[in-house]
Amino acid sequence: MMINFRTDLADERRDIYKKANNIENEIEGIETEEEQIDEKIKIIRVKVLKDEAGQAIGKPKGNYITMDIKKINIITEEEIEKAANVLSQEIKKLVENKIQSKEDVLVVGLGNSDVTPDALGPNVVKNLEITRHIINYLPQYIDENARPVSAIAPGVLGTTGIETLEIIKGVVENIKPKLLIVIDALASRSIERISSTIQIADTGISPGAGVGNNRKEITENSLGIPVIAIGIPTVVELATLVSDGIDIFIDKLQEKAESNDYLNKLQQNDKYEEVKEALNVGEYNMIVTPKEIDSLIDNMKEIVAKRN
Amino acid sequence: MMINFRTDLADERRDIYKKANNIENEIEGIETEEEQIDEKIKIIRVKVLKDEAGQAIGKPKGNYITMDIKKINIITEEEIEKAANVLSQEIKKLVENKIQSKEDVLVVGLGNSDVTPDALGPNVVKNLEITRHIINYLPQYIDENARPVSAIAPGVLGTTGIETLEIIKGVVENIKPKLLIVIDALASRSIERISSTIQIADTGISPGAGVGNNRKEITENSLGIPVIAIGIPTVVELATLVSDGIDIFIDKLQEKAESNDYLNKLQQNDKYEEVKEALNVGEYNMIVTPKEIDSLIDNMKEIVAKRN
Amino acid sequence: MMINFRTDLADERRDIYKKANNIENEIEGIETEEEQIDEKIKIIRVKVLKDEAGQAIGKPKGNYITMDIKKINIITEEEIEKAANVLSQEIKKLVENKIQSKEDVLVVGLGNSDVTPDALGPNVVKNLEITRHIINYLPQYIDENARPVSAIAPGVLGTTGIETLEIIKGVVENIKPKLLIVIDALASRSIERISSTIQIADTGISPGAGVGNNRKEITENSLGIPVIAIGIPTVVELATLVSDGIDIFIDKLQEKAESNDYLNKLQQNDKYEEVKEALNVGEYNMIVTPKEIDSLIDNMKEIVAKRN
Amino acid sequence: MMINFRTDLADERRDIYKKANNIENEIEGIETEEEQIDEKIKIIRVKVLKDEAGQAIGKPKGNYITMDIKKINIITEEEIEKAANVLSQEIKKLVENKIQSKEDVLVVGLGNSDVTPDALGPNVVKNLEITRHIINYLPQYIDENARPVSAIAPGVLGTTGIETLEIIKGVVENIKPKLLIVIDALASRSIERISSTIQIADTGISPGAGVGNNRKEITENSLGIPVIAIGIPTVVELATLVSDGIDIFIDKLQEKAESNDYLNKLQQNDKYEEVKEALNVGEYNMIVTPKEIDSLIDNMKEIVAKRN
Repeated sequence: MMINFRTDLADERRDIYKKANNIENEIEGIETEEEQIDEKIKIIRVKVLKDEAGQAIGKPKGNYITMDIKKINIITEEEIEKAANVLSQEIKKLVENKIQSKEDVLVVGLGNSDVTPDALGPNVVKNLEITRHIINYLPQYIDENARPVSAIAPGVLGTTGIETLEIIKGVVENIKPKLLIVIDALASRSIERISSTIQIADTGISPGAGVGNNRKEITENSLGIPVIAIGIPTVVELATLVSDGIDIFIDKLQEKAESNDYLNKLQQNDKYEEVKEALNVGEYNMIVTPKEIDSLIDNMKEIVAKRN
Repeated sequence: MMINFRTDLADERRDIYKKANNIENEIEGIETEEEQIDEKIKIIRVKVLKDEAGQAIGKPKGNYITMDIKKINIITEEEIEKAANVLSQEIKKLVENKIQSKEDVLVVGLGNSDVTPDALGPNVVKNLEITRHIINYLPQYIDENARPVSAIAPGVLGTTGIETLEIIKGVVENIKPKLLIVIDALASRSIERISSTIQIADTGISPGAGVGNNRKEITENSLGIPVIAIGIPTVVELATLVSDGIDIFIDKLQEKAESNDYLNKLQQNDKYEEVKEALNVGEYNMIVTPKEIDSLIDNMKEIVAKRN
Repeated sequence: MMINFRTDLADERRDIYKKANNIENEIEGIETEEEQIDEKIKIIRVKVLKDEAGQAIGKPKGNYITMDIKKINIITEEEIEKAANVLSQEIKKLVENKIQSKEDVLVVGLGNSDVTPDALGPNVVKNLEITRHIINYLPQYIDENARPVSAIAPGVLGTTGIETLEIIKGVVENIKPKLLIVIDALASRSIERISSTIQIADTGISPGAGVGNNRKEITENSLGIPVIAIGIPTVVELATLVSDGIDIFIDKLQEKAESNDYLNKLQQNDKYEEVKEALNVGEYNMIVTPKEIDSLIDNMKEIVAKRN
Repeated sequence: MMINFRTDLADERRDIYKKANNIENEIEGIETEEEQIDEKIKIIRVKVLKDEAGQAIGKPKGNYITMDIKKINIITEEEIEKAANVLSQEIKKLVENKIQSKEDVLVVGLGNSDVTPDALGPNVVKNLEITRHIINYLPQYIDENARPVSAIAPGVLGTTGIETLEIIKGVVENIKPKLLIVIDALASRSIERISSTIQIADTGISPGAGVGNNRKEITENSLGIPVIAIGIPTVVELATLVSDGIDIFIDKLQEKAESNDYLNKLQQNDKYEEVKEALNVGEYNMIVTPKEIDSLIDNMKEIVAKRN
């Protein structure tokens, strides 16, 4: 069965696949590990070890680390600092697996800086500490062990007319970094995770993932250097939300033994397309975002930018 | 039966009340009139003539004019100009019903300028043509028949610590305008109407309306001068969307004679609260907004500000 | 002799008056005190004790505290914290001189939020911790000794059509605070002081001060409650800069005994008006601001908003 | 004699060179032509025909077209439209000299979008009509004669850590446009020209030009395709303004026969460095900008972006 996951999070995909296939323990070829850092922060590490497991959840082999932050809407300065440190450690481990201590890193902030839920990547890039030009032109002002870090926000196809990959490729070929870190806004399945979860993956960004925006892959395969992707959910598809709501609803009917054959059948299919049609969503791309998105993104930007 | 409408639009409330009470024609004490201006623009005029009708739909006696603009996401400069003119004519008629040609108008842009879906009021106010100070200090630079227009954006309780009504009252008492125009972001029931509908009401803004933000009324009653409210939907409650989705879904089951007693009963109740609970929406106020809200609001701001 | 000071800083005015009148020590009726807090921060306290002294420098009797921060363009997070604390102590002393510990304070951020060098007041107000509504509506969530603080950004005459004083008056009459704190962008005489100096005055804002923007006074006299003004220079008049440049230049000629009668005479007069004419500054109001104003204001906003 | 022009405008450089060398007519190898389009708009065409003339004014051989717009601070919508058309015609002529009608153009908006006087390039790019991706992916939605236009805003060295030229080179090599249009903020010598003059040059951007920001050249030489530069002055060096003020001042002394040998000598030298030192400009880069820069840039952005 081909599942349309409608989420970019490996963790959510694993859960959906398991539910759809009535798998109780772990999917063969996937290992998962949870670590509760403190009351607010939890780390989930999903390792996709086999290609078949990757095909099952539509994610290539590799490491997917999810950091959940509870109640990010009422986070304090100290908790932001803490979350930034935890994130920093996780990224550091992945980076040190791939390159040497003084090798060049290029950070790419994907997304459109004029669309609030899409602006996270460009905003993080603006707030990073950039060192490459200081090391090149003013080495006396910087610690001699500093890693050269550079950063760009290439914009989106709709405003540049250029595939993002083409821009990144051009820059990579010219400045020859040893590793790419890509920051992107994701779709998730649950509105609770909007701007309160961060996924780090050492696999880059793959085609076909995400919510149908048929972007080209940004991976070691297309660029020749390892790519670490940092993704934060900022949008949910409306039809996903309604579809989930109906699922919960049918569950309740069944609990009360009020269900019937038709409902049981429905439950087994993906009624997503029907819901989508029924909602008659008209002209827009029905992607929704919480009203508080401005301040949620502001908090998340700080966490990701503080130290990369 | 007490209905929770979860929309600020008189037009939507009338439809919900009619459906809930199986009323086929018009509600007693309400008159409605539709005018198709052109392919894109439609005007709906709802007149609430009797107090009982007003209680039924939870809106005081008065005029509620709704302007729907189709596909505002792909609107052209010319169509914006056209819509601005139509809106301007409708507002003018209401204003001229209330005050003389050279009497003072104060425009108030409600909302928080740092929260995208809430920033419409303050944004419109920034783009209005203000004349009061020119008439007072530099009368030689302005047409002698110009109406004195002033404008403020008072902010919101959460960032000022002051009830909006208190600020407006203070300004009204000091500069003594003859009429108030209040611009506000509304909640609607349908995501299709987000930032593509404008409601003008000559009744001001009443308590209890809207999505539970228990604001104080901004009306002739509280301020002593007539109040015209211009409202644009920019948010929808998530539970509303899901509840509507389930309604459509049950309808489909019934068409196929697959329904049962329990479903039939459910259909008659407002399952909104149940849905809300089932969704487990966590810490945020689950008010959603389309991803494109930045550009939708930009278009609407131009339409409302062009000529008031 | 009537001096046109072209600065809002009491400290600069005192220096200009002393130089113009060849006063070596202190002006009769003025007391000054300097305190070097640390390497970066210096406090200058100017007390105007007599009305004649006040007339001499064009500032009413009262306390004028100037905090200079060196090299604010390269300030660290820790230094911002430190400066915020020092400022906070100075403001606290003035406030506690005027009102009791739990009496209401209203903060007013003057200026136009859409003009970078004028946006400091509105920006500070957005970042303040507001307590009045929490004390009123949710007292259980706040320390019972908290002072009620509210805040507004009333805009400017050019965009509201309303004298700022009229708006403040209206709000003061309605919410009845016991003290007003007004935050404003000032003109200074020296471009070095742009956004690196803060002046606190317990005299409010007086008419005739500043660079000819004939605003009405915002003082205890006009409002009935004490007014503390916090002002930060963000602009310099171009003609002031050139006039100062010519002064320095003539000084150099005189050192080399290359001066002549005409130059000596010039030196004694205020050649400001001549310079202004000679520069032929055309249509704009020739007020200049450093290119880095965006980031300078950002740093200053943090210092003033951190704790008020 | 080596002149430090401190302006990027060919027109101003020609005047400075002529004055410094007491040339009454035209510099050998330069041709100039003026056209008064209407009351507000004037075009000045400076052709540098010989290498020696180019060396004299520090600008390579080529065409420099300056469009002056009077009183841009009070410009109307119609005048913006008119200016945009005139500009568009001039650019079109240069473009059609270089490439065929359907050949690719890449527009590059230089500058830092977070520094108001530097943000013109990125702002224009955001408002351009981009066609390349529509022609590639949705050709049915666009006129078949449309020229493919793409655009990027590469950021600045200080925030990316990458030389702008390296980014542009990478993109050019990957998408292979036939012509580059570069939009940049310039320094001018006169504050009157801030954001009211546009210079178009078919020579690209050369090293050493501008105010000492030692950028690398962005020219046909470095990129292999023709480069048209559109530049708008948004900053003036403070020392330039003061130096000019002193010049005017000495002229006045000489008129009154109050000058002396020393002054006469000074007049012949460039006293810029002395002035710079005397002003003791401290830590910042003393580049100033008018207070109204936000709205000036807004008007200019519209003119340049309307049609390119």
